[in-house]
Amino acid sequence: MPGLIVMKFGGTSVADAERIKRAAGRIVEKREAGHQVVAVLSARGKTTDELITMAEEVSAAPDPREMDMLLSTGERISCALCAMAINDLGHRAISLTGSQAGIVTDESHTKALILDVRAERIRGALEEDNIVLVAGFQGVSRDARNVTTLGRGGSDTSAVAVAAALGAEVCEIYTDVAGVYSADPRIVPNARKLETVSFEEMLEMAASGAGVLQLRSVEYARNHGVRIHCRSSFSEEPGTVVLAEGETMEQPLITAVTHSDREARVTLTGVPDAPGAAARIFGALAQANVNVDMIVQNEPASGGGQAEISFTVPREDLRVARAALEPLVGEAFAELSSYEEMGKVSIVGAGMRSHPGVAAKVFSVLAREGVNIDMISTSPIKISCVIDRDRVEQAVRALHSAFELSGEDTILVEDTFRASPTS
Amino acid sequence: MPGLIVMKFGGTSVADAERIKRAAGRIVEKREAGHQVVAVLSARGKTTDELITMAEEVSAAPDPREMDMLLSTGERISCALCAMAINDLGHRAISLTGSQAGIVTDESHTKALILDVRAERIRGALEEDNIVLVAGFQGVSRDARNVTTLGRGGSDTSAVAVAAALGAEVCEIYTDVAGVYSADPRIVPNARKLETVSFEEMLEMAASGAGVLQLRSVEYARNHGVRIHCRSSFSEEPGTVVLAEGETMEQPLITAVTHSDREARVTLTGVPDAPGAAARIFGALAQANVNVDMIVQNEPASGGGQAEISFTVPREDLRVARAALEPLVGEAFAELSSYEEMGKVSIVGAGMRSHPGVAAKVFSVLAREGVNIDMISTSPIKISCVIDRDRVEQAVRALHSAFELSGEDTILVEDTFRASPTS
Repeated sequence: MPGLIVMKFGGTSVADAERIKRAAGRIVEKREAGHQVVAVLSARGKTTDELITMAEEVSAAPDPREMDMLLSTGERISCALCAMAINDLGHRAISLTGSQAGIVTDESHTKALILDVRAERIRGALEEDNIVLVAGFQGVSRDARNVTTLGRGGSDTSAVAVAAALGAEVCEIYTDVAGVYSADPRIVPNARKLETVSFEEMLEMAASGAGVLQLRSVEYARNHGVRIHCRSSFSEEPGTVVLAEGETMEQPLITAVTHSDREARVTLTGVPDAPGAAARIFGALAQANVNVDMIVQNEPASGGGQAEISFTVPREDLRVARAALEPLVGEAFAELSSYEEMGKVSIVGAGMRSHPGVAAKVFSVLAREGVNIDMISTSPIKISCVIDRDRVEQAVRALHSAFELSGEDTILVEDTFRASPTS
Repeated sequence: MPGLIVMKFGGTSVADAERIKRAAGRIVEKREAGHQVVAVLSARGKTTDELITMAEEVSAAPDPREMDMLLSTGERISCALCAMAINDLGHRAISLTGSQAGIVTDESHTKALILDVRAERIRGALEEDNIVLVAGFQGVSRDARNVTTLGRGGSDTSAVAVAAALGAEVCEIYTDVAGVYSADPRIVPNARKLETVSFEEMLEMAASGAGVLQLRSVEYARNHGVRIHCRSSFSEEPGTVVLAEGETMEQPLITAVTHSDREARVTLTGVPDAPGAAARIFGALAQANVNVDMIVQNEPASGGGQAEISFTVPREDLRVARAALEPLVGEAFAELSSYEEMGKVSIVGAGMRSHPGVAAKVFSVLAREGVNIDMISTSPIKISCVIDRDRVEQAVRALHSAFELSGEDTILVEDTFRASPTS
């Protein structure tokens, strides 16, 4: 018997009446195939941005609790409209707010964490033969008093959390791209759609700029064993399945090249070379909810017990980061400078574990292209380089080509070394 | 000590960022004068219409439960934005949905009735020194499971109900007009703003087309002894206070001329002259939530045990009314015809009780103007005439002038009779 499926539709998939009806049609197809269906919806197209603009028009620093009250309306609108469209197709549908769906979070407004999904009401509605639509991106605080939101892209996490709570067969994430690619097809036209990718690779890819899935949702899925299928809401083709590592068939050396062109670098000079200075700096940033990516610390040759710390943050967090560090000038560091025009290019692949030659090949490819590497960070399955923003596309193309990611064949470790004279 | 005030702002008063900030300023003024303040807000400007359009784009007959989920977002947006603006002015504000504010309704989606206001959370927030913003127009069903809405204009009723539950000193209704006038100033430029008006007069005026206050809210206010003050959100001038009849100072013969140009007439012919036919007809209309206004029944001279029934409904209800009556063709009546281009003109005044001469004067004024009267209905303090839509403005001006409503003086009953040769 077909099982329970969670389907998640992103903002572009519910952007207008036509698309909402199309999503309703996809949902009904699954129901008619015998599945029980829960669909998690994002706000329509630009709705969230419009609501944020409204807030900025009335207040310089909108209150976070009120921001959540405001932003949570977008997904409710999508769900109510989609429920109407499904009812029109002759099926019963009911829309639930995050609160009604039992998505319980902590109290950190605008960046709440899901603590629990109390899915009794969803289950009850499914048993009464309803298709259930759940407003993504939102929940209710523990004491059931306040609406919370999960932060940008939180609808993916809502969907995975609901899938986990219900023990769904699969969590299908519908977007306007057909799956996960070996690189952004807008930059690399012959990029390859990946049939499968491991959680670990997907985590690294989400963290390093691949916009298909939100990082938190992948973590949640890995921790709760939820199978994710990323696919297009505009075609019937299968997309990319995210699996536990043991389940994947092939283990290519490199899976994909990802990139971001929205990085900013902050440099702090005159940091006392004493315990506690770095802790105060990064403590203040954490307090302000700034995601710090790479960190480099140098002790200048001139010495004097003064160090220099550089780190990168998403460009949109730069203003908040500067504000958070302002009070520490003259204490934890002497001077702050920042540069907004940074980007990042990364290669990700479960097969590169314990193969340091890959890093060498990355550096030689970028050197050949004349791309200067500003900062480097590595993990067992990822190498990231911070570079100038206007060199990002060139770097992505060069790496994708050097690692032959468009082909059908996977590159063996030996090939890599042969192709890499500096290793 | 200044008491608790409920302030209600309509859609035009919160239509954009500038107006929301102005409303926030008005609210803060009251708070700074020492009042505890609860503000009930409508959806911004055209928001509700836009949401209805969205629903119509996805569904031919939107599900009422989902319609409520959809429409209730508009007022939440207004409240969250206004709370942000108040916080920016250095005061603490918290926005509450109808559900959070404890507005409990029955289950009739899109036309729910308020059953109770469980105001503990509002009181708690006020005691913690907050200004409380409540989303108008909405509530939660008895079992606390579903969002409901109160129907068009329901925000007035929300405000009055909250004022009643809290024992507020006054419920101030802010709109884009300065108060209640002796006639629509767009039609009668020298119409007079009324300082006070009785509940009974206000009820008749609301029922007969004066758009300042929703009928239900006036009934609720009368039944719960809530003092209403209708005033402009764009000026500091006092508006019109709605009082119990004993409280009003003056008792003019005629208070105002009201009108509507959105009436439709339905005529049913071949109604069996037997018990039960009319009950079935108006039962079906009530079931469909159609507000029937005037009803006239004629037995044609040709006889044959067949009667003819005509009635008026708001033009926007005509489609629903026809659909509700369709199944009764050939049973409760033979044929249905309708005419959409009707209007209504009414004169209202507590002083006209037991003065039939007023009706005679109305008829003679309209006769002199060559306005044909299609249907008539009277109450102790109101006379309404259904007339052709395109004669409404002329009739309003003629009646306003004949009853000298623009002047400072009230007309005495004797004057009326003298001026009315047909009485």
